[in-house]
Amino acid sequence: MVTKNQIKLVTSLQQKKYRNQHALFVVEGLKTVTEVLDSGIEPNGIYVDNELYKNKLGDSAILVTPSVLAQMSSQNNPSGILGVFHIPKPIEPALKGWTLALDAVRDPGNLGTIIRLCDWFDIQNLICSKDTVDCYNPKVLQATMGSIARVNIMYLDLIEFFERNPNTPILGTFMDGDSLYEQSFPKNGILVMGNEANGISDKIKKKVSHRIGIPQFGTQSTESLNVASATAILLSEIRRG
Amino acid sequence: MVTKNQIKLVTSLQQKKYRNQHALFVVEGLKTVTEVLDSGIEPNGIYVDNELYKNKLGDSAILVTPSVLAQMSSQNNPSGILGVFHIPKPIEPALKGWTLALDAVRDPGNLGTIIRLCDWFDIQNLICSKDTVDCYNPKVLQATMGSIARVNIMYLDLIEFFERNPNTPILGTFMDGDSLYEQSFPKNGILVMGNEANGISDKIKKKVSHRIGIPQFGTQSTESLNVASATAILLSEIRRG
Repeated sequence: MVTKNQIKLVTSLQQKKYRNQHALFVVEGLKTVTEVLDSGIEPNGIYVDNELYKNKLGDSAILVTPSVLAQMSSQNNPSGILGVFHIPKPIEPALKGWTLALDAVRDPGNLGTIIRLCDWFDIQNLICSKDTVDCYNPKVLQATMGSIARVNIMYLDLIEFFERNPNTPILGTFMDGDSLYEQSFPKNGILVMGNEANGISDKIKKKVSHRIGIPQFGTQSTESLNVASATAILLSEIRRG
Repeated sequence: MVTKNQIKLVTSLQQKKYRNQHALFVVEGLKTVTEVLDSGIEPNGIYVDNELYKNKLGDSAILVTPSVLAQMSSQNNPSGILGVFHIPKPIEPALKGWTLALDAVRDPGNLGTIIRLCDWFDIQNLICSKDTVDCYNPKVLQATMGSIARVNIMYLDLIEFFERNPNTPILGTFMDGDSLYEQSFPKNGILVMGNEANGISDKIKKKVSHRIGIPQFGTQSTESLNVASATAILLSEIRRG
């Protein structure tokens, strides 16, 4: 049994304000819930609407009716399982290897895809400017496919973060940067990716030590690559060795 | 002045059935409408809700009230300009250089991003299997950022297309494929990307002459890259030379 107040709490977590207030977030779908559980992030409540999922997950899962689950869900077609978890306390990492920093990435789908890329390319720390979209936004979580549980994500003032890590190469992508195909990348560094419409902001630009560009082919009429596509290409180049 | 029937026609074009019936599609936003106009695709009607856009576009633009434009629009925040265009008759290309083929890509955002990538990396022909999402879907068009006007897109039976182009190398991506970092890519070929959940289908697999993989780093726990991210990485590798 769940109370109306519990349903209301879960629904409220679709909004950033309430996620921050309760330090809780919601994921949906068997694969993602299982991956977040396996990662050691502390669950607050796992809700399922069928015996099959209940048996899979054991005593920790709370059986509710499909209509209660649909009320809790942010999805048009609820998947039958929804997990509420405590937001992990992020720890500012001692930098090693490569770190990705995002300067005001606003689209939830882009952030979700970028988190999945970090997981694939073993980028353990993702630093987001405070005006980057919240990583516990339901649309972000849907796009991460469970990778949220394996990447350490922090929201920080980027300038202060750079200043705490002097002597670390800071790479930024620019339309007129040096071709990434002609770089030999250092063994460690920070890669900065900018906002969808405006790229890297002026104050961050000043901190960039290496200006990189992805060459355009053909008629050169596209204005820019999608930020997640550009991140995919750059992380692949950094890791190809 | 626009009639109720015209508004109804424009609204109906949000559905594939009516786009096919009328051979028309809709784009929104000044940048995209201008790019599609500049590409030579024949307009059926350009609707604007303010004098500024009317002056920019001249006599061809029809001034309507914001509430009429909002009725026509598929967006929550209409941009003040909406263009209805005739769907160009696609011409099956004589293959030269590289062609991208999509096997049942279903997500509109992914297809839009992939069209934008084709534009950036000068892939002039994009062949979609008939069960790939429609490229004139409003969500696809929103993600292409105008690139729709510069890529020749065809919906074909992929097997038949391959058979009409024998001797062309066909590259496919697989979890266990040979590392793309160790390939020297031919000067021309067809790159096949598969469905979001299932990858390349069995019948297409048999036609692939080169099995390529994107190596995973770290703990290897992510199941797959997003198809648009994988396409970005592969097209960059093909072009880096």
